[in-house]
Amino acid sequence: MASVLTPQAEDFPRWYQDVVAKAELAEPGPVRGTQVIRPVGYAIWERMVSEMDARIKAAGAENASFPLLIPESYLRREAEHVEGFAPELAVVTVGGGKQLDEPVVIRPTSETVIGESMAKWIQSYRDLPLLLNQWANVLRWEMRTRLFLRSSEFLWQEGHTAHATEADARAYARRILHEAYEDFMVQVLAIPVQVGLKTARERFAGATRTYTCEAMMRDGKALQMGTSHELGQNFAKAFDIDYLSSEGRQEHCWTTSWGTSTRMVGGLIMCHGDDNGLRVPPRLAPVQAYVTVVKDGDGVMAEAMKLRDALRDAGVRVGFDDRVDVSFGRRAVQAELRGYPVRIELGPRDLKAGNVVLVRRVDGTKTPTPLAEAVSAVLEALEADQAALLEEATRRTKERTADVTTLEAAIEAAGDGFARVPWVKVGADGEARANEVGVSVRCLTRADGSVPDSDDEADLVAYLARSY
Amino acid sequence: MASVLTPQAEDFPRWYQDVVAKAELAEPGPVRGTQVIRPVGYAIWERMVSEMDARIKAAGAENASFPLLIPESYLRREAEHVEGFAPELAVVTVGGGKQLDEPVVIRPTSETVIGESMAKWIQSYRDLPLLLNQWANVLRWEMRTRLFLRSSEFLWQEGHTAHATEADARAYARRILHEAYEDFMVQVLAIPVQVGLKTARERFAGATRTYTCEAMMRDGKALQMGTSHELGQNFAKAFDIDYLSSEGRQEHCWTTSWGTSTRMVGGLIMCHGDDNGLRVPPRLAPVQAYVTVVKDGDGVMAEAMKLRDALRDAGVRVGFDDRVDVSFGRRAVQAELRGYPVRIELGPRDLKAGNVVLVRRVDGTKTPTPLAEAVSAVLEALEADQAALLEEATRRTKERTADVTTLEAAIEAAGDGFARVPWVKVGADGEARANEVGVSVRCLTRADGSVPDSDDEADLVAYLARSY
Repeated sequence: MASVLTPQAEDFPRWYQDVVAKAELAEPGPVRGTQVIRPVGYAIWERMVSEMDARIKAAGAENASFPLLIPESYLRREAEHVEGFAPELAVVTVGGGKQLDEPVVIRPTSETVIGESMAKWIQSYRDLPLLLNQWANVLRWEMRTRLFLRSSEFLWQEGHTAHATEADARAYARRILHEAYEDFMVQVLAIPVQVGLKTARERFAGATRTYTCEAMMRDGKALQMGTSHELGQNFAKAFDIDYLSSEGRQEHCWTTSWGTSTRMVGGLIMCHGDDNGLRVPPRLAPVQAYVTVVKDGDGVMAEAMKLRDALRDAGVRVGFDDRVDVSFGRRAVQAELRGYPVRIELGPRDLKAGNVVLVRRVDGTKTPTPLAEAVSAVLEALEADQAALLEEATRRTKERTADVTTLEAAIEAAGDGFARVPWVKVGADGEARANEVGVSVRCLTRADGSVPDSDDEADLVAYLARSY
Repeated sequence: MASVLTPQAEDFPRWYQDVVAKAELAEPGPVRGTQVIRPVGYAIWERMVSEMDARIKAAGAENASFPLLIPESYLRREAEHVEGFAPELAVVTVGGGKQLDEPVVIRPTSETVIGESMAKWIQSYRDLPLLLNQWANVLRWEMRTRLFLRSSEFLWQEGHTAHATEADARAYARRILHEAYEDFMVQVLAIPVQVGLKTARERFAGATRTYTCEAMMRDGKALQMGTSHELGQNFAKAFDIDYLSSEGRQEHCWTTSWGTSTRMVGGLIMCHGDDNGLRVPPRLAPVQAYVTVVKDGDGVMAEAMKLRDALRDAGVRVGFDDRVDVSFGRRAVQAELRGYPVRIELGPRDLKAGNVVLVRRVDGTKTPTPLAEAVSAVLEALEADQAALLEEATRRTKERTADVTTLEAAIEAAGDGFARVPWVKVGADGEARANEVGVSVRCLTRADGSVPDSDDEADLVAYLARSY
């Protein structure tokens, strides 16, 4: 099969662009930095939303919708927050044909406008915790843009919660990190993630602690897949998010925020994709099994439709390709590009032998399979291939993680993957030096791999890498 | 039960505001005209999205995501379109700290930016029809705003399709109108809608034909619940949406667009709500059955939880209220306000008698029901009450629709509901006169109730009403 993509080994960024274009996932919009997510790409995002939304709801958060437009003055109420976001703002100065008295900005994130609502909704400890989430678009003006990975406008979920105590806020920020984000990424996306604490330098603007899920792409670079923040009382003070405690005292709340975005689609592509295109893990895949009619005749079409229906009845998300007027090769290339986990090919010759051909995207194997066993073979393949993708990515991440003991060795090792180094050997100064050569501290963990409460703890391990 | 709402008969607009506030559905955002949709209101919208999305996909359209920001010049390419939307635009003039070379607008609707993509994606007749939909936020600067009904930013779905022929485009615009919109509104929202053709004056800016679903609210005013437009070749010409026909000729496509929005939540409130609050039809309701523990003791809590689980297992969307430290009356008022279709009250006294009390929101009846029959009684009540709400609204709409024969009588009758009058008695001049006194032509139908192709057809009936 002639490859239509630049090979990864030749030029990884170009390969990425090729996949996004040729699999028809996305393309640039007319305004610089914006993007059009095409139906094939959007179907993947819809599946992500569905799986994530269920986990977020299971953690007790409720969805709501807050305004796109925020008064500019709101951002200024939290000093670090405005400093972080001011350079990226899109400002609306004209509305309804008139110059506005106060300019408003398109939300780059919604801590401020949601903080304003929280202040109204929370009266007493009985109203806590307040657990909110929204699925929305946000905008951060970007000069260097890359589809899915870095775009001005992107789609995301942003959770915002308020708690009575710091301990509650911390527990919830960590619960989302593990139960919603890490679980989804590992179990559904089949992407192993390193979970840890961000350094002060990498923290969200306005947060006291930022937790992160970091994944390694096939080129050895890290991608931040999702973050969860403790905001301390910073926003509670700026927006008067107060409550009357059970002892009758007026107290500031402790708030958190956490987000994941369409960036995960980029991570999916770069973690699992190969020289033939995407490989979508079965649990995520909008199309898990793709029934392909090779050629019509001898009742093939009717059998193919029966198989499609049987697969649907078995709970499989099925695609059906009966475009027999398009060359089979072209259709096969397209299916590979889009990364459908299993293809079931059915032609007159197969049918005469009572067979279908089962093609697995993960490893390219083609197995003639008796028609009567096709459904169970597909179910088995889907389960096996979900595990295979996670295993492959886990193995790669391990192989490309080097344990080193000096900053210099870490910077060197980060050229090819993660460098694990004692945090005492790096520190804020070492971090700044690493940054100068394009390497960053992705996160800190304890020696046993657990997530620390502070970068002051003893014996912390730093993960250094180049990153997207 | 003391009512917490202004009675409808006293002041309908104030009643509406009261319901939206007291049921915690929505509230104004900080920037004029924007709104916060609170979790209770958003859960209703989520159910609408889920039901509508399934119907839109069943009609073959695929979801995608197009940019929020559109170059101002795009809107100018279609003369009527820009004329219609220019007064309502929000304009971004600063991005990333710099004055933009060309101002960009926040989408008021996406015909233009989607047209640009369609032109790239469509090469030949094989690429047609192209059926797209997006769930998104749009912004139209509004001076007189009302939560859900008229707000600057609102959430909606907008479908955009391209076809080879005018007949195909028309058939699809009508298919969505009936199979997605009308079916959803009648079957799920339990809101009877008058489906018809808009007059030239009421047409979407840039359309050649606009079809509409009009519903009557409890105050006799009409609400436009959704529209579907044939755009002719207007946008195809402006954005070069061309295709190579099977005969090898380069042709312009015929496009359509169609939309429904969070406005439907307003329609739901005003069509079914009563002096105690919302009444949400069971098929739509995020919470269909609300298990309420009146008082704990004698194993009540355990029984209530068992009942909750049994209802869930039966496929019912269940809410659970075990806040026994909050007064029962207050909790009952809240449940009524939010319009949960069925409440199941469970206290020690009921349990001793082996009963629960089943309270139906539609008519307020309270029926002691043996615990063992509770699940089947709930299922029956949900089905009956869905039908009851539709019947009630249908009866009211009929009662308040007057057949008249002159424009003057129509304007008079429109003071209390729909006036049905021969369109020849109105015409463009009569329509302008009616508009002057706050009455509009909601739609035109044929005498047999079917949807006409043109306002030139003989024997058309015009529906006049005051409207939101």
